[in-house]
Amino acid sequence: MKNIEAMINKIKQGTVQIIPETELYKKIATGKRLCVKFGVDPTAPDLHLGHAVVLSKLRELQDLGFEIIFLIGDFTSRIGDPSGKSKTRPPLSEEDIAHNMSTYLEQVGRILDSNNIVIRYNSEWLDPISMKEFVKLCAKVTVARLIEREDFANRIANQQPISFHELLYPIFQAYDSVALKADIEIGGTDQTFNLLMGRYLQEQFGTDAQVVITMPLLEGLDGIHKMSKSLGNAIGLAEPADQAYGKLMSISDKLMWRYFKLLLHIDDLELSQLESRVAGGSTHPMELKKKLAHDIIAKFWSKTEAAKAQETFEALFQKHDYSKAQETTLPAATPNPIWIVDLVKMITNITSSSEIKRLIESKAVSVDGVDIIDFSAKITIKDGMIVKVGKHKFYKLVIK
Amino acid sequence: MKNIEAMINKIKQGTVQIIPETELYKKIATGKRLCVKFGVDPTAPDLHLGHAVVLSKLRELQDLGFEIIFLIGDFTSRIGDPSGKSKTRPPLSEEDIAHNMSTYLEQVGRILDSNNIVIRYNSEWLDPISMKEFVKLCAKVTVARLIEREDFANRIANQQPISFHELLYPIFQAYDSVALKADIEIGGTDQTFNLLMGRYLQEQFGTDAQVVITMPLLEGLDGIHKMSKSLGNAIGLAEPADQAYGKLMSISDKLMWRYFKLLLHIDDLELSQLESRVAGGSTHPMELKKKLAHDIIAKFWSKTEAAKAQETFEALFQKHDYSKAQETTLPAATPNPIWIVDLVKMITNITSSSEIKRLIESKAVSVDGVDIIDFSAKITIKDGMIVKVGKHKFYKLVIK
Repeated sequence: MKNIEAMINKIKQGTVQIIPETELYKKIATGKRLCVKFGVDPTAPDLHLGHAVVLSKLRELQDLGFEIIFLIGDFTSRIGDPSGKSKTRPPLSEEDIAHNMSTYLEQVGRILDSNNIVIRYNSEWLDPISMKEFVKLCAKVTVARLIEREDFANRIANQQPISFHELLYPIFQAYDSVALKADIEIGGTDQTFNLLMGRYLQEQFGTDAQVVITMPLLEGLDGIHKMSKSLGNAIGLAEPADQAYGKLMSISDKLMWRYFKLLLHIDDLELSQLESRVAGGSTHPMELKKKLAHDIIAKFWSKTEAAKAQETFEALFQKHDYSKAQETTLPAATPNPIWIVDLVKMITNITSSSEIKRLIESKAVSVDGVDIIDFSAKITIKDGMIVKVGKHKFYKLVIK
Repeated sequence: MKNIEAMINKIKQGTVQIIPETELYKKIATGKRLCVKFGVDPTAPDLHLGHAVVLSKLRELQDLGFEIIFLIGDFTSRIGDPSGKSKTRPPLSEEDIAHNMSTYLEQVGRILDSNNIVIRYNSEWLDPISMKEFVKLCAKVTVARLIEREDFANRIANQQPISFHELLYPIFQAYDSVALKADIEIGGTDQTFNLLMGRYLQEQFGTDAQVVITMPLLEGLDGIHKMSKSLGNAIGLAEPADQAYGKLMSISDKLMWRYFKLLLHIDDLELSQLESRVAGGSTHPMELKKKLAHDIIAKFWSKTEAAKAQETFEALFQKHDYSKAQETTLPAATPNPIWIVDLVKMITNITSSSEIKRLIESKAVSVDGVDIIDFSAKITIKDGMIVKVGKHKFYKLVIK
């Protein structure tokens, strides 16, 4: 009994909801190996720290001995968006999906034990389902239940069209839980409706209903929007550790607490102790942010990379020691002196002159510690010169 | 041109709507043999005059040389009501459907040339449709369009549940029109939504859209509700002509005009002439009703049966000549005298004593012209005795 409670407390840490907790208790008490479903969209293989919130919870469940199933929603992605409304959702070929998933699982392997994950594709049971069976399946769901989903309800209220096939998707997802006999399904809070739908459909099929675990959505670097690659506010798990560390150091103090909680699962008690230490002045927020960045890199990259990234950061930003700056090779034939705009284009991936102008105007470009304020400046380059672009990016020129 | 207009005027007669009439004109003008879809529910093989409204319009279209397709909705009837809510809709076996349809077509043969009807079953294309194709199909329909159907809209407004599979049915029906490449679909006004859905889906598939022809719904004998076997207000096409004639004579004068219009396609001009003749007293409504009953029996049964039924009716009700009353044989061993209730039970199909009591109380039971008013009366029966039960039913006893 005590063990189970301890287990549940551990599982609860960092979640938004467990629906219902009593059933989770019962399921664990049976002693059966519990099967945890996690739905994966095979269109987006690039993982970032936002995904890490759910994935690290899955890691904990894996460590507790649960069976982790990655459910790849290949059935619908092979159809694409049949309404033709979305240009970004053409149908994926089987090769596309296989490629996306191998990239995806490689990244997942940094958080979970990837040898201990079961991979299932929902085309396995959705492709062969007959229209007759599907009609019977649909009879188990009411229209009211489907259109109460927040985004559907909003679109109905705003008289925006919903294609009928969109209503099928929650049913497919729910049926995946029936097919897998899932005991638990986990996802972000934006998936709550779909996860509950799985629970509901399992009940309709007269089988044990899954417990739903929802995880908070991580805000991106801007502290406002959900972390998302397309919004440019993400830290990708495939990014170099130094770069990720630098991005983490750029977040606001307020967001720092959130990352402590969601990515490192620091509990509320410890969090409030840290907050009062900062408020009282006994801890500098910069020091705490360094700890956050270090521990996140240690957790999702490696301890070695974390130590190295921290060292680099301290050298560049605190000790102004640029020996650790990223080396960038320029050919010997590079014009010298060179227009600052051309130089920045050569060493960064910025291609827009107007963006570089904006950086110069905001004093975000410096050469050997001297801010460049003149857009037309010509720079005489030399080996070992340090060029800073933006808030956290140092380049050491290597000319050969 | 003139010919087509005459054709369209003929088709228009007795319809509620032709959507759109201009397209019907264009379709006829192509000179192609037009394909007319008529959906048939294989659960209810008993036809009545309510069905005759649409069927006689189909006969006219058949006479114009159009191809008439009876589309049997076997796909869904073989599923039954998967929600389990309706006890009256268990799934039908293939044998059930074959049997129902042969009974049905036998009756249809009294109105249409049954050798010139194409029979199609929608399981032909709905059974093999894959989930992938179906998702694509559903993408062509918006949710708003589906739930604007009157009964769905009402149920949503009244917060009555709609099973999700019910939303699939209009899509299936519409897809039938796509599969058949229907040029025209015809049905009662209660089918308007479904017929338009077929038109809409054909457009989505980029094919020629069907013209929708809706026919009025015939009121039953009560003059209030739609004619329906289960409401007991129907005249079945399989009923004896005498009985049908009698039922027609029982309708109200108001309903008589409706039957003239919907079953005999008397046009509005002729109808108003008849109405003014009745109003002016130059025609007795009873005489007109006899003409209605005669012409309906002649049209949907046969001229011979119509003449015979009219003769019987006149003999019984006008000349009080009971020689034409229906003979009913009673065994010689029948108790004599016999309680009136037992007698009525023996000669009619009424089994409820309380119903017989009600008939007696309303003076609807008579023996040889004498009303029976005493529920406990004992009748001394004899050969040739005339027993009247209800308004139109005479029985001549034959004892042997």
